[in-house]
Amino acid sequence: MGGASCSRARVGDVAAWIEAWAAPMAPENVPLAEAAGRVLAADVPARTELPRLDRAAADGFALVADETVGAGAYNPLPFRLVPASAGVRSGHAVAVESGDPLPAGADAVVRLEHAAPDMPGTISIIAPVAIGNEVERAGSHVALGSVLVAGDRRLGPGEIGLLAAAGVERVSVVGRPRVRCLLAAGPQPSATHDANGPMLAALIERDGGVVVERRRVERSRAVLRDALGSPGADIVLVAGGTGPGAGDEAAGALADAGELTIHGVALRPGETAGAGRAAAGGVPVFLLPGTPAACLWAYELLAGSALRRLAGRSPELAFATRQMRLGRKIVSEIGMTEICPMRFSPDGQVEPLASFAEAGLVAAAGGDGFVIVPEASEGYPQGSAVTVHLYPGRGQTPRVTAGVQRQPGKRGV
Amino acid sequence: MGGASCSRARVGDVAAWIEAWAAPMAPENVPLAEAAGRVLAADVPARTELPRLDRAAADGFALVADETVGAGAYNPLPFRLVPASAGVRSGHAVAVESGDPLPAGADAVVRLEHAAPDMPGTISIIAPVAIGNEVERAGSHVALGSVLVAGDRRLGPGEIGLLAAAGVERVSVVGRPRVRCLLAAGPQPSATHDANGPMLAALIERDGGVVVERRRVERSRAVLRDALGSPGADIVLVAGGTGPGAGDEAAGALADAGELTIHGVALRPGETAGAGRAAAGGVPVFLLPGTPAACLWAYELLAGSALRRLAGRSPELAFATRQMRLGRKIVSEIGMTEICPMRFSPDGQVEPLASFAEAGLVAAAGGDGFVIVPEASEGYPQGSAVTVHLYPGRGQTPRVTAGVQRQPGKRGV
Repeated sequence: MGGASCSRARVGDVAAWIEAWAAPMAPENVPLAEAAGRVLAADVPARTELPRLDRAAADGFALVADETVGAGAYNPLPFRLVPASAGVRSGHAVAVESGDPLPAGADAVVRLEHAAPDMPGTISIIAPVAIGNEVERAGSHVALGSVLVAGDRRLGPGEIGLLAAAGVERVSVVGRPRVRCLLAAGPQPSATHDANGPMLAALIERDGGVVVERRRVERSRAVLRDALGSPGADIVLVAGGTGPGAGDEAAGALADAGELTIHGVALRPGETAGAGRAAAGGVPVFLLPGTPAACLWAYELLAGSALRRLAGRSPELAFATRQMRLGRKIVSEIGMTEICPMRFSPDGQVEPLASFAEAGLVAAAGGDGFVIVPEASEGYPQGSAVTVHLYPGRGQTPRVTAGVQRQPGKRGV
Repeated sequence: MGGASCSRARVGDVAAWIEAWAAPMAPENVPLAEAAGRVLAADVPARTELPRLDRAAADGFALVADETVGAGAYNPLPFRLVPASAGVRSGHAVAVESGDPLPAGADAVVRLEHAAPDMPGTISIIAPVAIGNEVERAGSHVALGSVLVAGDRRLGPGEIGLLAAAGVERVSVVGRPRVRCLLAAGPQPSATHDANGPMLAALIERDGGVVVERRRVERSRAVLRDALGSPGADIVLVAGGTGPGAGDEAAGALADAGELTIHGVALRPGETAGAGRAAAGGVPVFLLPGTPAACLWAYELLAGSALRRLAGRSPELAFATRQMRLGRKIVSEIGMTEICPMRFSPDGQVEPLASFAEAGLVAAAGGDGFVIVPEASEGYPQGSAVTVHLYPGRGQTPRVTAGVQRQPGKRGV
């Protein structure tokens, strides 16, 4: 009965298993306005050059370069200012802002500082310029047919702007993996609120998946086995029913339904996690412990890395990291990958909080980040440099903000 | 006409101006299921203790501790297994999974490894336990009335799970600032696609704001002045019309409508940016250059920091950072805060890409991150350690992925 712990997989074994099957989903075509945060499924070639037209690279005056020959502080040459729509003829200039299309007839821009006001409607040029001066040539940023944005790029505001500038209105992005969450309720379900359902929903959304079903099911081997068989998902997460203590129903159900490939993982919290397939060659299934903190970390290190791969992202943890110095030692068991909750200390170091086993999710919600102690390590002494994974919003500056008062409430505008 | 550049504000001056007025928006009450990523407006007190019930802290058998006195490998004590609903009486035990409520009558849990299978329906205990062994007491994670989640916390999956566990169904979060985007079209608007509108929409969404209006307006002082006066926004962004070259219409319009506080910023790209208020004491307005790369960085360093404050977040840039070594020198002008696009080099260093002035948004979409060279610096020599701000998805591992083949396309499930 307790034998499962002897054959526990290492976190790296699970990662290798995932890597063997988890490729990005089939692409879908979405409007650019809905594509922020998605991953491009293929290179987007430039169907237009950028800039599309020659344009001013500086604020100043567009004119014919040859007409500035001999201009100088002691020989200001006057030009008549005309609107851009008129185009530039001999003796004329057009006021332009950086980025404006070069008016017809102009071949150079004189920067503001090389011009002096003259009579109303005219401007004096006090330095000569060559053809092409302060002109951004059409195609100088992007040539026709070149790769505009590469095919594994996650679309941020810069990419969205670039694609919009090139006239791209729809893009092909990696599809969102569809996730079924089965919440295996233990005894007295009415006496406890479900933490795992809302938590998993937030995790799946963050990692680019979409929850197609979230259902509380009885923690029974037969009921779970039947629920695993439903179609319509790309990945199934079962939370609860993983412990050998009360029968290991989830593992039994997965073995009955398809394949139980991973049964127990050397991960703390999360050691009763498992994984496999709902049928031979079928949809992948992750078994997550029912205890919320263990569910969280089994998701982050195991199921989440699979989901991120399906969504076309890096499988690695979706947290910024920073090297920091330990204010207090961390002790960990050899042979277990251990997640240690951390908080910033006032002196700019980090220190461990009470473990997830002792404090549950409080250790996440009250912390600034976490340290992963690998299997081969028994921890780190005080003063060591460790890699801290930072919770979002904790990433920019350690919260050593004595004297800085926040002012919640309505602004005075 | 060129005088504006002499009175350019420093980036730090703009930050100080923003800090003087930008406080988090008035709170709104939202369902927990929609609260991920939002910032709590106030501490959430615990209205229940957590765990809500005494529960098993390990997989094993719940029983009466006193009945295990004398148990040992050579003196196994048999217990009859009963269902949890029956409760524990003398001589009985209940199989439990970590996290299960402690059955009525039980006061301790014997771990799996201290039990041995016996006849069907019974279990032998081979080690004595004390009262409370492997029992997580009600209230041991969170005491009634204590702070469950602190009031400036951005709600991640862990916080969502903790709040759900405590039965919290709605939370009070900092409201989303409403943003109006006015896109001041230059001459020949039909000849160019609008990059700034979609880009600003993605930036605003990322920073927790909501675009209430996005409108292309004529680049004329009178038209812009009138557009600035519309009600219903908490902040207004004007893109375009900021250059002195073609008349600085946006700055003029803002001066006419209310107050032009900042006119030109020592920021590259972005030096023609400005800011002020749409009326005396009115809604704050940021003027962003029309050239997309300059619009992007004037948003990130100026307008975005205001928006993030209104949304209750840290005003700092929303990027992970990493210390990296420069493979090639960066040259920058003293007196200007300069944004240098960077990419990872194959040897694990970073090197500058062609500047935003030379390559436009291509320098963002093709890069891995950027370095900010402060005003007082004229750049960094090759080999220096610099702080690289990483684009999302570039943060986890430098893309030194020779030999790793991605496999786009449908998975074989």
